[in-house]
Amino acid sequence: MRLTCVGLGPGGGADLTARARAALEEAELIVGYTTYVRLVRDDFPDKEYLVTGMRGEVERCRLALERAASGTRVALVSSGDPGVYGMAGLLLELAPEYPGVEVEVIPGVTAASGGAAVLGAPLMHDWCSISLSDLMTPWEAIERRLVAAAQADFCITLYNPSSHGRGDYLRRACDVLLGVRGEDTVCGYVRNIGREGEEGCVLTLGQLRDAQVDMLTCVFVGNSQTRVVAGRMVTPRGYLVEGR
Amino acid sequence: MRLTCVGLGPGGGADLTARARAALEEAELIVGYTTYVRLVRDDFPDKEYLVTGMRGEVERCRLALERAASGTRVALVSSGDPGVYGMAGLLLELAPEYPGVEVEVIPGVTAASGGAAVLGAPLMHDWCSISLSDLMTPWEAIERRLVAAAQADFCITLYNPSSHGRGDYLRRACDVLLGVRGEDTVCGYVRNIGREGEEGCVLTLGQLRDAQVDMLTCVFVGNSQTRVVAGRMVTPRGYLVEGR
Repeated sequence: MRLTCVGLGPGGGADLTARARAALEEAELIVGYTTYVRLVRDDFPDKEYLVTGMRGEVERCRLALERAASGTRVALVSSGDPGVYGMAGLLLELAPEYPGVEVEVIPGVTAASGGAAVLGAPLMHDWCSISLSDLMTPWEAIERRLVAAAQADFCITLYNPSSHGRGDYLRRACDVLLGVRGEDTVCGYVRNIGREGEEGCVLTLGQLRDAQVDMLTCVFVGNSQTRVVAGRMVTPRGYLVEGR
Repeated sequence: MRLTCVGLGPGGGADLTARARAALEEAELIVGYTTYVRLVRDDFPDKEYLVTGMRGEVERCRLALERAASGTRVALVSSGDPGVYGMAGLLLELAPEYPGVEVEVIPGVTAASGGAAVLGAPLMHDWCSISLSDLMTPWEAIERRLVAAAQADFCITLYNPSSHGRGDYLRRACDVLLGVRGEDTVCGYVRNIGREGEEGCVLTLGQLRDAQVDMLTCVFVGNSQTRVVAGRMVTPRGYLVEGR
């Protein structure tokens, strides 16, 4: 029995790959977190849906695995890429308890790629992805990664920059970064990537510190070469350097 | 005039998003590097094509911009995501010289996401993307990033791990990483992601040092928690830790 773990891209719909769309068409049951299921429900009205809330990750995966084991064609959906802060890992960890179920991961456009395209091209050189959620990672480890990334001059994408319980995490992250990088470092953020209300903003690290962002925002911090070109955030790769 | 910079995903075809496919359908002229154009030519046989070789990046972008400025609907294509080691940045840097041309970046599934899905779920936690190509980046900077990423316990994706002129770069990178991480660190690589001959391999960092890889291979180095689950490479995010 095959269970697909499907990435919807940032907004579903036009962001879906053909492979992801085929997996959803083939599925009888679509399982996912409320917000993600909303991205596909209108396109696939005739499917059975199983919707679970936040923090219900283990339950969600087990439900999908159980139904797959009983012979239902199941797709477990995530926005973006299920392999980046999504459900693919947990699903593969639990799958051996359900013999006969074969998990296929179908990648999607991750929020970093989707948001970068809105801002311009901030991730053209080596870059890091860091989640500011400390639900499962101690803040000290997050801080250590921020410092390491800034010191080695990576471009940085911050996922989960805020939530109800952690309104000041982006500010704390910026303060850590400002210990290494200048306040003029080019930054940006994008809200509602690929969805209604999509909105990008290019600003400095000093300004980012005081920006209000929500959970559905992806934040970008440039490297030492990142600059603003005609209003877009661009990290040069070096093609225009003399002598090349 | 609109010029689209279109990400094809790792293999084109089923990896294309609906948005990318629509941009190609709308284009009169498709511009790209030989290998990338091959991914779409069969699906869009009636388009005009302009193909340039490797190292022709500036010329390729200028050709696309010139034709767009003269009124042709142009799509410049990259495999994967054009915003990750692709053409989006260079195109945006040059665009202001061509008034009236508006560049739209259409993201794609990057090789890291595509390759991760083949191996399992190696990038479930904070991760870095590092290119081993030293054409435009001094090797010392690459080495510094490898050390920083390993010390801060990032998962790592290595792009461009090898080429004709740099057959031993992956070995050199592994030696740098082995200075920080144990030789049992779980690693993997995927050849020809999303294309004919796709082939994934899970192995240790010690074994990776001696692996033969080519330019079309994407390499994955796990963090301290990454493990092999039923043959797949999985980095746990922490959902199954007691007490959560």
